[in-house]
Amino acid sequence: MTQATGTLYIVSAPSGAGKTSLVKALIDQLESLKVSVSHTTRSMRPGELDGVNYHFVSRDVFVEQIKQGDFLEHAEVFGNLYGTSQSAVEKTLAEGHDMILEIDWQGAQQVRHALPQARSIFILPPSREALRERLTNRGTDDYGVIDKRMSQARDEISHYVEYDFLVINDDFNTALDDLKSILRSHRLSQACQQDRYQGMLAALLSD
Amino acid sequence: MTQATGTLYIVSAPSGAGKTSLVKALIDQLESLKVSVSHTTRSMRPGELDGVNYHFVSRDVFVEQIKQGDFLEHAEVFGNLYGTSQSAVEKTLAEGHDMILEIDWQGAQQVRHALPQARSIFILPPSREALRERLTNRGTDDYGVIDKRMSQARDEISHYVEYDFLVINDDFNTALDDLKSILRSHRLSQACQQDRYQGMLAALLSD
Repeated sequence: MTQATGTLYIVSAPSGAGKTSLVKALIDQLESLKVSVSHTTRSMRPGELDGVNYHFVSRDVFVEQIKQGDFLEHAEVFGNLYGTSQSAVEKTLAEGHDMILEIDWQGAQQVRHALPQARSIFILPPSREALRERLTNRGTDDYGVIDKRMSQARDEISHYVEYDFLVINDDFNTALDDLKSILRSHRLSQACQQDRYQGMLAALLSD
Repeated sequence: MTQATGTLYIVSAPSGAGKTSLVKALIDQLESLKVSVSHTTRSMRPGELDGVNYHFVSRDVFVEQIKQGDFLEHAEVFGNLYGTSQSAVEKTLAEGHDMILEIDWQGAQQVRHALPQARSIFILPPSREALRERLTNRGTDDYGVIDKRMSQARDEISHYVEYDFLVINDDFNTALDDLKSILRSHRLSQACQQDRYQGMLAALLSD
């Protein structure tokens, strides 16, 4: 068995579609899958940890990293900067792990440009009503912010056509199984399997 | 919800790789998946039913059907003719069902030519030893036939590169879950989902 290169998955969704919970469950259940820890200039929320949820850095540090070409993608969202370290992603893929990036459509466009073999998934809420309800129940944002996020959601959703897969998060476990099937089936693609089972295939074809 | 067109899956494997059992389990578990019942000129085996396992026809009838262009693919294997009715396949796909064809690499080439959007899966045994053991344990063939099938297997396996996916049937349930993930993930592809959820997507983007 040779060391096959991992696959990079981009996951985007409007705020409130359940992306973060789904990705967390996926990471917990799939040993071979690693999440990329992004850099951000936004403030830490209650319960978040530096280096786990994000690398929390100052705007000055972030801008310096952009200048040095450290980021695979970066974007400003709601007044905060977010970015993904390219060297960290490439190292993890080379080790044979699949990797998942939670980024918005702008970041997705940058990553597709840099790594065209990346596969992208857009997570949708089943309706606008469900999205508003989830944003409200989350309780971390006031109504003004929720209205802004609802408007932003429509803009983000309009980019779904740029993604390889669409997952509708109506039932959490169904959506989770959907995501798992997308990752599993790609590992079964001929190119990935040929990479992984070179020896076995050679033996099957030997005398 | 609109009526999305189904997807045609081609499944090939060397004799003894477990293809028929896997496809049967897949059909039993996935309501939306239909199997194509092939025509054949070979003799009925104990337990087989006409119109269920195959449409058993004479060589004269089969040759007449070829002349009339009735077959999406047909091939002669071990001295018997096998073929798939094109009209039956197209009718089932148009009804929105996925469909699975168990055919050899020659038939797969014909189907890919006629229907390039078909997705193809090759099922492999984990080793030549496992393949010989399964052919022996099946008990329906004598040793001469088994040796012929082992030789034939190598030729068939050499065509695995023509397939979109490779599934290794070492553990039956793992291989079955592999097949399910291939079908499930394709239904999540953007084109399929857009087809299926036109109304929902329009509502998410409305004011």
